[in-house]
Amino acid sequence: MTINVTVWNEYIEEREYPNVRTVYPDGIHEVLAGFLSKEEDLAVTTRTLDMADHGLDEATLDDTDVLVFWNHMAQDAFTDEEVERVRDHVLRGMGLVTLHSAHWSRIMQRLLGTSMTLSWKHDDRERLVCVNRAHPIAAGVPQFVDIDQEELYGEPFDIPKPDDVVFAGWFAGGNLFPSACTWTRGLGRILYFQPGHEEYPTYYIPEIQRIITNGVRWAAPTIRQREPIDCVALERTPEEEYAARHQ
Amino acid sequence: MTINVTVWNEYIEEREYPNVRTVYPDGIHEVLAGFLSKEEDLAVTTRTLDMADHGLDEATLDDTDVLVFWNHMAQDAFTDEEVERVRDHVLRGMGLVTLHSAHWSRIMQRLLGTSMTLSWKHDDRERLVCVNRAHPIAAGVPQFVDIDQEELYGEPFDIPKPDDVVFAGWFAGGNLFPSACTWTRGLGRILYFQPGHEEYPTYYIPEIQRIITNGVRWAAPTIRQREPIDCVALERTPEEEYAARHQ
Amino acid sequence: MTINVTVWNEYIEEREYPNVRTVYPDGIHEVLAGFLSKEEDLAVTTRTLDMADHGLDEATLDDTDVLVFWNHMAQDAFTDEEVERVRDHVLRGMGLVTLHSAHWSRIMQRLLGTSMTLSWKHDDRERLVCVNRAHPIAAGVPQFVDIDQEELYGEPFDIPKPDDVVFAGWFAGGNLFPSACTWTRGLGRILYFQPGHEEYPTYYIPEIQRIITNGVRWAAPTIRQREPIDCVALERTPEEEYAARHQ
Amino acid sequence: MTINVTVWNEYIEEREYPNVRTVYPDGIHEVLAGFLSKEEDLAVTTRTLDMADHGLDEATLDDTDVLVFWNHMAQDAFTDEEVERVRDHVLRGMGLVTLHSAHWSRIMQRLLGTSMTLSWKHDDRERLVCVNRAHPIAAGVPQFVDIDQEELYGEPFDIPKPDDVVFAGWFAGGNLFPSACTWTRGLGRILYFQPGHEEYPTYYIPEIQRIITNGVRWAAPTIRQREPIDCVALERTPEEEYAARHQ
Repeated sequence: MTINVTVWNEYIEEREYPNVRTVYPDGIHEVLAGFLSKEEDLAVTTRTLDMADHGLDEATLDDTDVLVFWNHMAQDAFTDEEVERVRDHVLRGMGLVTLHSAHWSRIMQRLLGTSMTLSWKHDDRERLVCVNRAHPIAAGVPQFVDIDQEELYGEPFDIPKPDDVVFAGWFAGGNLFPSACTWTRGLGRILYFQPGHEEYPTYYIPEIQRIITNGVRWAAPTIRQREPIDCVALERTPEEEYAARHQ
Repeated sequence: MTINVTVWNEYIEEREYPNVRTVYPDGIHEVLAGFLSKEEDLAVTTRTLDMADHGLDEATLDDTDVLVFWNHMAQDAFTDEEVERVRDHVLRGMGLVTLHSAHWSRIMQRLLGTSMTLSWKHDDRERLVCVNRAHPIAAGVPQFVDIDQEELYGEPFDIPKPDDVVFAGWFAGGNLFPSACTWTRGLGRILYFQPGHEEYPTYYIPEIQRIITNGVRWAAPTIRQREPIDCVALERTPEEEYAARHQ
Repeated sequence: MTINVTVWNEYIEEREYPNVRTVYPDGIHEVLAGFLSKEEDLAVTTRTLDMADHGLDEATLDDTDVLVFWNHMAQDAFTDEEVERVRDHVLRGMGLVTLHSAHWSRIMQRLLGTSMTLSWKHDDRERLVCVNRAHPIAAGVPQFVDIDQEELYGEPFDIPKPDDVVFAGWFAGGNLFPSACTWTRGLGRILYFQPGHEEYPTYYIPEIQRIITNGVRWAAPTIRQREPIDCVALERTPEEEYAARHQ
Repeated sequence: MTINVTVWNEYIEEREYPNVRTVYPDGIHEVLAGFLSKEEDLAVTTRTLDMADHGLDEATLDDTDVLVFWNHMAQDAFTDEEVERVRDHVLRGMGLVTLHSAHWSRIMQRLLGTSMTLSWKHDDRERLVCVNRAHPIAAGVPQFVDIDQEELYGEPFDIPKPDDVVFAGWFAGGNLFPSACTWTRGLGRILYFQPGHEEYPTYYIPEIQRIITNGVRWAAPTIRQREPIDCVALERTPEEEYAARHQ
């Protein structure tokens, strides 16, 4: 069964900053889409902020099983309507994989409700440590994944308690972080995955690609509600239903 | 140590509808404040929607350890600023006890992020079943609490996974519900407690009063952050700190 | 990919009691194996208590991806060694689906650590209520599943907090129960599913079959550790590993 | 309200090994009891392995609200009966605070059900990082607590998913660990706290003492069941109870 994956990237820094362009000359989304497209069960398209409706129109989301989302600077660009549209699709079952600084995206702030603040520091060394080996997102990934250069994201990190933390980040600079953590909101599964600062070639690391690929498959919907979300007025008691079935 | 409790009620239906006024002639908030005030460690004040800033001004929240909140119809009355103000205090440690239809309040929608939709039905009989006897909110409460008349709230209920469900509601009309459930958001503890439809004398039941009283004590802050919530830029590595401590 | 399923049944009451034999003339295991065998990805075999090693020998478990387990009276028949053998396979990744009174099996008591006590009552009517629609175990199952006759299992139920409760049981006799709940222990996934008293034709209900089938697929191992479980003495620091990789 | 605390120590290495005796000349239990005794609400006694019934007799446990437990080598000394006795008291409400290598104690293995295996390495530097600032066990403890010398305990650590991880351990040697984690089993609250290798003066560090003191208060029972744990046969339906109350 094919999973429709939409990779969304704000695609600003790769065009503005030479040191980022060097690492991701065609944008982070192209690298993400590149390795995901190699998987037979994934059908991948890309969207960027400079498209109509910022690439987050109703038709796109309606056709998306899992949205992979990289965001950093462009919080003010999003309209309330766009934020609500993405949230609504997640609550009705669309999977969401948010990467690196997208913890701070308006979409994550809206879906999770907390401040999403954290501690941070440039230029550190990270080691991902698997803390949940049986989780599908860890399948085929070694116990430790070393990343020579990353941005430190550390505690305190103001998030709701995750359903699962699959990988934790150990940083040489003396902090640790829930680097791959999951939530369910409505019918939708959400993965946040911390590595992937735009100045470093993190998304070229095979184990990182494996984790993201696993995450996309894990986040694919079990069910997808097409009608609007609403309260339900119940009409019959179980006694009435029982009677109706047995008359 | 005294806990400052603010009981907030929108106080509309008790004035507009005779059948509600009969049950709560001075408003639901006065009944709630009445039994809470009998506890030596609780200092209780009340606020209602018709006050300045809808009773949710900065000074009030700053002096509140736990906000008890009953809300039903007045969603449109709240400004975005008021919603954000309450949310901010919760994230910085203020306890929040939301009652009955306040699951649907803009404040809960903002803090929890999901749609908060549910199934419902008028005029049912409920039995609260304790499903977590060791939880402080269950202290001194029997295994079953029968409520002769309540509004059925049932599944599906679109909430984030609670930290704990302390009581579940069994309804004669064939449904069940996580009737007392808790979350932590930021530094703040949140209890949602379902019984308390305005037409029925639920808040006069001693066991219901006991659960709400327990909930207020449980929700009192461990710490309260007075400065704004913000990200933290780390400056020293642990090696640098270690060297500084040992030089 | 084929999942090897072993259905284990103590197979006592079906032979001893006519009212049970009428419902399950060839044993509960044959009904379970019957509907599971219709699934193309499941390879099903059966084992019963009267076999050598009580049907739980090392070779059987080694070839089993998911063990489906029905147990009621024969607690004293199991040796410590058998209990430890099953536990060890679960901790190394084998899935475990325990049915009805098997909550009380020595294997569940050993794996979960609590007393597994509950309240109970004969002859009741149950309604399964889905409380986690996005969970794979709920796929394709309606919001409510009515069971005309079941044994009431109710609170208090002394279990460790489940990872997820997928279905809760509403009983006409005034109780409720976490009827489908899951845990992860070591690398193994465990589902406990409450319906299935031996006197009633519960396992012939299509929705019950669907839940068990979903549960088997969900419990299939992500990884399976073949070497013994042991502590690991670490030898190199990440600095040493980093140096070794970059020399 | 006074909390009766029993500090149990196997008290072997402090007598056998000079380098341990130098650090804890009167035994680890005396240092633990020393700082706990300074709290007005704690009444502290000590027990050691060399006492009758290994210091874990029925009368002692019956009078204990919270058992603080340090164990390393003496697994074979415990009888099955002693292990079951402690487990039974925890399930009926006694709090349990297990320290350092006591993760491996027979009591923890019995209560939690998993293998409790981990990775380890001598002579490392640890930094405790608070990952749950609102938790009562973190009250008054800074964001980071540096321990100059500790034994590394690292992932994978085979435990059931904790209710809460309050502190995580960052080790210079490239690993991390759920250093303060909690579970509820039956009516009893359990804290496992990792720092405290017998060769290092960890228990003299004020912040470590604060965490253990917080943990003892947190683990004190909400309710304590004095009768044996057993299943409950229900007799009346809620309809019958309702009728009885209203006749």
